[in-house]
Amino acid sequence: MIRIAIVGASGYTGAELVRLLSLHPEAKVVAATSDSFAGQKLGDLYPALGAAGDMVLRKLSDADLSPKSADVVFLAVPHGESLKLTPGLVASGAKVIDLSGDFRFHDTSVYEAWYKHPHTAKELAGQAVYGLPELFRDKIRGAKLIANPGCYVTSVVLSLFPLVKTGLVDCQHILVDAKSGVSGAGRKVQYETQFARVSENIIPYKVGVHQHTPEMEQSLKMAGGREVVITFSPHLVPARRGILSVAYARLLNHSTTAELTRLYQDFYRNEPFVEVRTAPSGLPELASAVGTNRCLVSVLADERTQTAIAVASLDNLIKGASGQAIQNLNLLAGLPESLGLTGPGLLP
Amino acid sequence: MIRIAIVGASGYTGAELVRLLSLHPEAKVVAATSDSFAGQKLGDLYPALGAAGDMVLRKLSDADLSPKSADVVFLAVPHGESLKLTPGLVASGAKVIDLSGDFRFHDTSVYEAWYKHPHTAKELAGQAVYGLPELFRDKIRGAKLIANPGCYVTSVVLSLFPLVKTGLVDCQHILVDAKSGVSGAGRKVQYETQFARVSENIIPYKVGVHQHTPEMEQSLKMAGGREVVITFSPHLVPARRGILSVAYARLLNHSTTAELTRLYQDFYRNEPFVEVRTAPSGLPELASAVGTNRCLVSVLADERTQTAIAVASLDNLIKGASGQAIQNLNLLAGLPESLGLTGPGLLP
Amino acid sequence: MIRIAIVGASGYTGAELVRLLSLHPEAKVVAATSDSFAGQKLGDLYPALGAAGDMVLRKLSDADLSPKSADVVFLAVPHGESLKLTPGLVASGAKVIDLSGDFRFHDTSVYEAWYKHPHTAKELAGQAVYGLPELFRDKIRGAKLIANPGCYVTSVVLSLFPLVKTGLVDCQHILVDAKSGVSGAGRKVQYETQFARVSENIIPYKVGVHQHTPEMEQSLKMAGGREVVITFSPHLVPARRGILSVAYARLLNHSTTAELTRLYQDFYRNEPFVEVRTAPSGLPELASAVGTNRCLVSVLADERTQTAIAVASLDNLIKGASGQAIQNLNLLAGLPESLGLTGPGLLP
Amino acid sequence: MIRIAIVGASGYTGAELVRLLSLHPEAKVVAATSDSFAGQKLGDLYPALGAAGDMVLRKLSDADLSPKSADVVFLAVPHGESLKLTPGLVASGAKVIDLSGDFRFHDTSVYEAWYKHPHTAKELAGQAVYGLPELFRDKIRGAKLIANPGCYVTSVVLSLFPLVKTGLVDCQHILVDAKSGVSGAGRKVQYETQFARVSENIIPYKVGVHQHTPEMEQSLKMAGGREVVITFSPHLVPARRGILSVAYARLLNHSTTAELTRLYQDFYRNEPFVEVRTAPSGLPELASAVGTNRCLVSVLADERTQTAIAVASLDNLIKGASGQAIQNLNLLAGLPESLGLTGPGLLP
Repeated sequence: MIRIAIVGASGYTGAELVRLLSLHPEAKVVAATSDSFAGQKLGDLYPALGAAGDMVLRKLSDADLSPKSADVVFLAVPHGESLKLTPGLVASGAKVIDLSGDFRFHDTSVYEAWYKHPHTAKELAGQAVYGLPELFRDKIRGAKLIANPGCYVTSVVLSLFPLVKTGLVDCQHILVDAKSGVSGAGRKVQYETQFARVSENIIPYKVGVHQHTPEMEQSLKMAGGREVVITFSPHLVPARRGILSVAYARLLNHSTTAELTRLYQDFYRNEPFVEVRTAPSGLPELASAVGTNRCLVSVLADERTQTAIAVASLDNLIKGASGQAIQNLNLLAGLPESLGLTGPGLLP
Repeated sequence: MIRIAIVGASGYTGAELVRLLSLHPEAKVVAATSDSFAGQKLGDLYPALGAAGDMVLRKLSDADLSPKSADVVFLAVPHGESLKLTPGLVASGAKVIDLSGDFRFHDTSVYEAWYKHPHTAKELAGQAVYGLPELFRDKIRGAKLIANPGCYVTSVVLSLFPLVKTGLVDCQHILVDAKSGVSGAGRKVQYETQFARVSENIIPYKVGVHQHTPEMEQSLKMAGGREVVITFSPHLVPARRGILSVAYARLLNHSTTAELTRLYQDFYRNEPFVEVRTAPSGLPELASAVGTNRCLVSVLADERTQTAIAVASLDNLIKGASGQAIQNLNLLAGLPESLGLTGPGLLP
Repeated sequence: MIRIAIVGASGYTGAELVRLLSLHPEAKVVAATSDSFAGQKLGDLYPALGAAGDMVLRKLSDADLSPKSADVVFLAVPHGESLKLTPGLVASGAKVIDLSGDFRFHDTSVYEAWYKHPHTAKELAGQAVYGLPELFRDKIRGAKLIANPGCYVTSVVLSLFPLVKTGLVDCQHILVDAKSGVSGAGRKVQYETQFARVSENIIPYKVGVHQHTPEMEQSLKMAGGREVVITFSPHLVPARRGILSVAYARLLNHSTTAELTRLYQDFYRNEPFVEVRTAPSGLPELASAVGTNRCLVSVLADERTQTAIAVASLDNLIKGASGQAIQNLNLLAGLPESLGLTGPGLLP
Repeated sequence: MIRIAIVGASGYTGAELVRLLSLHPEAKVVAATSDSFAGQKLGDLYPALGAAGDMVLRKLSDADLSPKSADVVFLAVPHGESLKLTPGLVASGAKVIDLSGDFRFHDTSVYEAWYKHPHTAKELAGQAVYGLPELFRDKIRGAKLIANPGCYVTSVVLSLFPLVKTGLVDCQHILVDAKSGVSGAGRKVQYETQFARVSENIIPYKVGVHQHTPEMEQSLKMAGGREVVITFSPHLVPARRGILSVAYARLLNHSTTAELTRLYQDFYRNEPFVEVRTAPSGLPELASAVGTNRCLVSVLADERTQTAIAVASLDNLIKGASGQAIQNLNLLAGLPESLGLTGPGLLP
């Protein structure tokens, strides 16, 4: 059994790691920490966890993070916190999967510009492997430090990658209009995510300035080999989970929906967690992948306006965070990539 | 592997059987029928099913129901339909688990009075075993025809059983105010369950005349040994899944919340799917058990008014229907009762 | 024009007073105070207010509360705060309509027991008039200090009053199961009212210990002439506005739904804001009265169990708070009681 | 008093006309027709209407539509139906305000191509005046037949008009991602708008083929003097009311958010129902204008990507349909344009 420590287990992504690992046959959570809820059972915060919630949260201690007690450490903490913890962990020999944004950028000046936060572990930024398995599987296998991608980024990059890689669209002017459930904002109590504020509402926020924007551009450039410029417009929507991203790009040559769909099917033929659905009948919806580690993708050509439209949907806490982190764990540990991550979502 | 046929697999409880059986190691769905959607893949109706939805729905044929092809037949059809199908099935030697209301009453005149429908298989009514495992486990093991309980009934009976059995309350005047998500009304398209009708609304309906009322009274009498009279007031609420029932009964003698809680803990100590939670901090909520086969129960004493209040929560499609049906299948097949039915729910 | 000061105008009931008074032809808000948002326009907090939101919030000053500047002062503050402000206001000669719970009890020891807060203005408690116009209209006309009723209380008392007054039910054992939208908890940011907590959930809380319980009992006794004992069980539901209360009481003699409905129609024949709807077809729902100052009421007899069921619905911020406060203002000022308070709600 | 007949009063826009006209001092509904609900009181379908719902629906008869009984006829019927009714009405001398799409196109071949329906009153298409008051106020005053704009169209055209008119953006490649509450789909009972389908979901539909697309292009060309090509991507969202549209266009020259905002403020300085809000703090949200006849508009420049982003929000049943129809009525009748249409929305 792989021994797992989770730092920040009381937050949504931390608790989701506990939930998903309770379904994993080869991993075992040996430590789950929380600053705010140390001493409480995780199940008191998340009753739906059932037996998986019996674990008692504790304050982070050095022992928890030592490779003597844990083989892999998941950091489910706000950005800035990983910068503090990671250097010591990596030095001690632990494998680290970081769910924050701290190590997602090769160029730390990009991090500093968009996160408005100094990067204090620049020497590690170059060693971190970007943990999007569909694009960087081989590098992930040998990594010591994995930067787990952002939720929006996973959705947008998977939906645009075939178009960028093949150069079918004008990569200099891509527009992404994305919609996220409230759990994307974390468990923090705030006015913005009060029921009275969110119910029957759609709230655009951080239009043009969301910190996931440069991460999308960097990933698509690394994997697709082309400079990409994205105008990103996220929205908070009345759902607990789910991301729906819709990307618009100008087609450089005439294409049809059927042609683009075949292209996507070729790209993702062997991917266990990317399902290409035929548009328009099978267009992904926000709720379509909730509860699963899948990313559903469709592509359309609006032939009248020469525009490609790529739609993707995923569960922001699973394929957009904790499920993907376990997919990375499986790669790291030489296990089957899908282990513990299949299984259907609830509908309705 | 136990071979399973599901009649009515396109409805909510039928599709939920498919979903849950995809997680079951000892059962395999060999036929899934649907009148309205024959020829379609189940996954086209329920995309979240993933691989479990690859199965193609077909028209019901005699072959599907023969014990030569299926060991156990689940009937996930509206009441009245089971009356037609069951006699032939039982005669042929198949084991039947019926999710409709058709065989839940020993006294078929009660059925006829509350369902406003003639009972056309009265001779079988006496042979059917009522499939609430926590109360009738032993009979279920040897049954040929299992009448799977109603969703409201499971919640209410489990929450009241200890009070009735011990005679601590006035059983002649019990009030139950229950709240159900819309999937309890089935997949049928109707004005009552349109989003514009249900969102930010709570709709009382069938107050005093809901057909689950006599089923509650019969079950509590059979198991608890006392006549019980219930005023039942159900409500439709803006949720896809979940039942929350709150039962009120007059305490015949003084009791405290702590005393009643201990009583419940004693009653349900060995039940894998009933969790007694301490009131008031742990009171079940509508969403607390969604996605699981569990029924959460709390009990309070309002000492000022001498009233016992029993609160229960479950997922109407799982412990309230299809999960419970699989619990019955496990008993019938001599398997561990929890097989395939553990696993946490999503939260948030 | 009546000059109005609103203390606590940034909260939900305060902002609702501003909204409703913008529709009132004979009253004008001359001061709107807020501790937390002084200096901001009210419309920045509530964009839907439109022109009515142009008013700038300010810190409370003595001048605001002087009868020289305001004829009537509405206190839309948490309980405890009114205790501090009211004595000075009343002494200065201002008319006060207090939306908090501070002056709702003749017996201040009841307040202290249920609110867990010392009552520091006991001498005023006896002078306050309870502002439920349908029951205490005449006293309200001459009042100096009006204690505006609680939202749950208005719904429950109006729905039970005819049964209590006529003595048709056992008043010693009344059960009330009520459901409230989140705005009942105020604008305060808290985990309990986060979207991720409330959506698709129903949350029972303060069962048996809610501070509105003794207020219901006192009002029904004052108006109905009988001791009443209520077991009260409130629930938080996924709606921004609306209260639905369902009260259950044992009928002392046989009655039918039709008979009880006629009784209610007689009681409320001349009430502009109480609409008796025929059960079961016209049963009030949570959303039925949202956006209006009306309270919808239905009554049923469950003849099988000898139980009367009284259902009521209102908008907790209007008839349950600010609309009722303006109804009281109209009475106080000798204006038509409905002035500025008619007008339909939105549906869907 | 202007005498009004409403054809199709049981649908959402028809009932909303009744609601809004109950607040109008100079108009009176003299006939309200419905095929499906003739004989019923409108208030039975929409209890929130209160006294305004006392009107009894009746079958459409010739008398209802005669100028002897009604001065203005509102057609709140599905497209195709107006084609049948309008020629007779116009011939008889009645003024007609048509809320369907039947007379919105000068070029009826566009109608036929996008609505997939033959146009059977082509001679009237040229006489119809497009009823968007902010752009075509003068023509509306003298019209006999007004084609009331589509809900999406009103939002998108008002948000893009200043950019198109000034030629600041590339009008050949505009993208619009819009989100609409379910009432936009009408009162018809359908699977797509069931609660279980819509709750916690976002559903893209008719991407690139929505029939409002050419109407946006035509209106912007007529008013802005430039050919416009729009890729339109609508979404169904879990709200009863509200449209949020986000339009993206490439800036031809460098601009800032402040400069664009000033431009919009100049354009709409005197418009009573268009409110320009400063981005990013004041960005409209789906719920911001619900319950009002206002359209809120913001504009941003994403300077990094040279993209203008225009965000607009309105209530699809008011400014997007029935409120705008009454605004047109006021213009037609020589009344103040805002008469009966001011008044705040509910929040929260």
